[in-house]
Amino acid sequence: MSPAGRRGRRATDVGALIRGAREGDARSVARLISLVEDASPALREVAAALAPHTGGAQVIGLTGSPGVGKSTTTTALVRALRAAGRRVGVLAVDPSSPFSGGALLGDRVRMQDHAGDSGVFIRSMASRGHLGGLSWATPQALRVLDAAGCDVVLVETVGVGQSELEIASLADTTLVLIAPGMGDGIQAAKAGILEVADVFVVNKADRDGADQTVRDLRYMQSLGGRHSEAGGWRPPICRTVASRETDNGIDEVLARIEQHREWLESSGEGDRRRSERAAREIEAIALATLRGRMGDVHGSAALDALAGRVVAGESDPYRAADELLDQL
Amino acid sequence: MSPAGRRGRRATDVGALIRGAREGDARSVARLISLVEDASPALREVAAALAPHTGGAQVIGLTGSPGVGKSTTTTALVRALRAAGRRVGVLAVDPSSPFSGGALLGDRVRMQDHAGDSGVFIRSMASRGHLGGLSWATPQALRVLDAAGCDVVLVETVGVGQSELEIASLADTTLVLIAPGMGDGIQAAKAGILEVADVFVVNKADRDGADQTVRDLRYMQSLGGRHSEAGGWRPPICRTVASRETDNGIDEVLARIEQHREWLESSGEGDRRRSERAAREIEAIALATLRGRMGDVHGSAALDALAGRVVAGESDPYRAADELLDQL
Repeated sequence: MSPAGRRGRRATDVGALIRGAREGDARSVARLISLVEDASPALREVAAALAPHTGGAQVIGLTGSPGVGKSTTTTALVRALRAAGRRVGVLAVDPSSPFSGGALLGDRVRMQDHAGDSGVFIRSMASRGHLGGLSWATPQALRVLDAAGCDVVLVETVGVGQSELEIASLADTTLVLIAPGMGDGIQAAKAGILEVADVFVVNKADRDGADQTVRDLRYMQSLGGRHSEAGGWRPPICRTVASRETDNGIDEVLARIEQHREWLESSGEGDRRRSERAAREIEAIALATLRGRMGDVHGSAALDALAGRVVAGESDPYRAADELLDQL
Repeated sequence: MSPAGRRGRRATDVGALIRGAREGDARSVARLISLVEDASPALREVAAALAPHTGGAQVIGLTGSPGVGKSTTTTALVRALRAAGRRVGVLAVDPSSPFSGGALLGDRVRMQDHAGDSGVFIRSMASRGHLGGLSWATPQALRVLDAAGCDVVLVETVGVGQSELEIASLADTTLVLIAPGMGDGIQAAKAGILEVADVFVVNKADRDGADQTVRDLRYMQSLGGRHSEAGGWRPPICRTVASRETDNGIDEVLARIEQHREWLESSGEGDRRRSERAAREIEAIALATLRGRMGDVHGSAALDALAGRVVAGESDPYRAADELLDQL
């Protein structure tokens, strides 16, 4: 192999990738996401290079139990947003989604219905990062799509466990999808999923029980809580029938999202959420860094010596931990 | 209230409690465990005062699926150990155990069958600490029982999720209990529970299927893995019928534990486990301390300023995290 070839392999031209991404080159976007997702050595360089180009994207979260139709709704929203001429990114962090597959997909950006449309980037994320919940790489991938000039980024995740709280912390506007029947409304209430909704979407609204689901939601809103009214915003309830063929109700969902965006700006809540999101991200990275440093210590001579003193009864674990931290 | 009364309330005479514990006073033991369990301000003082008195106890872990008879086996082991004149401590970290109840029990040391026997301390721990898995306070409570002069401490925990790995890291000898039928052997294999066994106990061995369970275990051992033979120790398989009335097979279990203890000492594995245990404990405390410091930072002016710079695109989360760590 030629020296040039080796050099080309070793070095990643982050600047060129970012220029490519901003010009709509899907391969550059995919490569950048892979760099942040794999925590590659270039991660910090990528993060620094992205920073000046971020802050433009509107982030919309979609969450709900498996089977409520998250991915068809995502597809319908993408279609409508594209029709309005907007550049769209999709991050699918949902193990049940056909978009998904996480690491299996490698660094390919999938386009499905939108194949060949350079105004749409669709990316599946591994559903569980090593910090649990949303892949820790999701905020970084979001920043790549933001810097690549996406006007809107949709983050789709299944609403189980902690992920709905995390999506709410990532998104400007969080859609909670509910399907009629199956006592889904009650389940949602139990799971705390209602608390994260900025807009409720009762999908499959052509089914029996849709009216009851809407009534259940209204009743639960009447009981109070953040989903009832937070600083002047009462989450509206939309009805949709989203499938590969029909987009019924999607325009209303987009109108409600736009209303919410205006409210976020006028109330100052948008700024607050963006700051909170950045602060959480900084903290998570700092904690992961500390954990990494601890990992370096694991099995080290220093730790072995401290452990030996504890075993011998010459020290106790708390004093030893303090001494370990002093050495970090 | 008199000044003396107030002073008496405020200060905890750790030295007196440790003297009391070493003389077999159950109240002192209970109070010390509460101090370490609640992460009281006196925690560090207690840990330091305990250190010179620790290292004497043999720690035996018991784990297994719900319903295999962990608590009856524990009771039978306590009975046999007491008959041999040994001081015994029990830490029950099992939500399904009648010993359990965690925080609900407050600081009472329960004695159940052994009420009035000052040679037995039984303590229930909250089953889930805020670090997940075994209560983080368990190692500290173990140190209290060790310092109080227990010859043997039995740590009982239900074998689900991570807890069996944690118990193995706490114990000198880990008993894995299995009951016949229910495909329990296979379940155990899936759960990775076999890997932590130093001694297998097939309990309820009078039931149909006990022979099959023993054969299943032998077969799985033949397939290899740590449970097959680790550094010369091949985990033996004992059969017991432990209930409130019968102790069949318990003497053999104790004999196997004693054999394992001798092997631990002669092979050096005992020293290795003790060091590893202390190292893990030190790391866990150090990480919790760091997390605490991060918590202090949350919502601070410094973090807000860093988040503001990230939102403005003037910095990126990685650089901001480094700056945050510099300020810790």
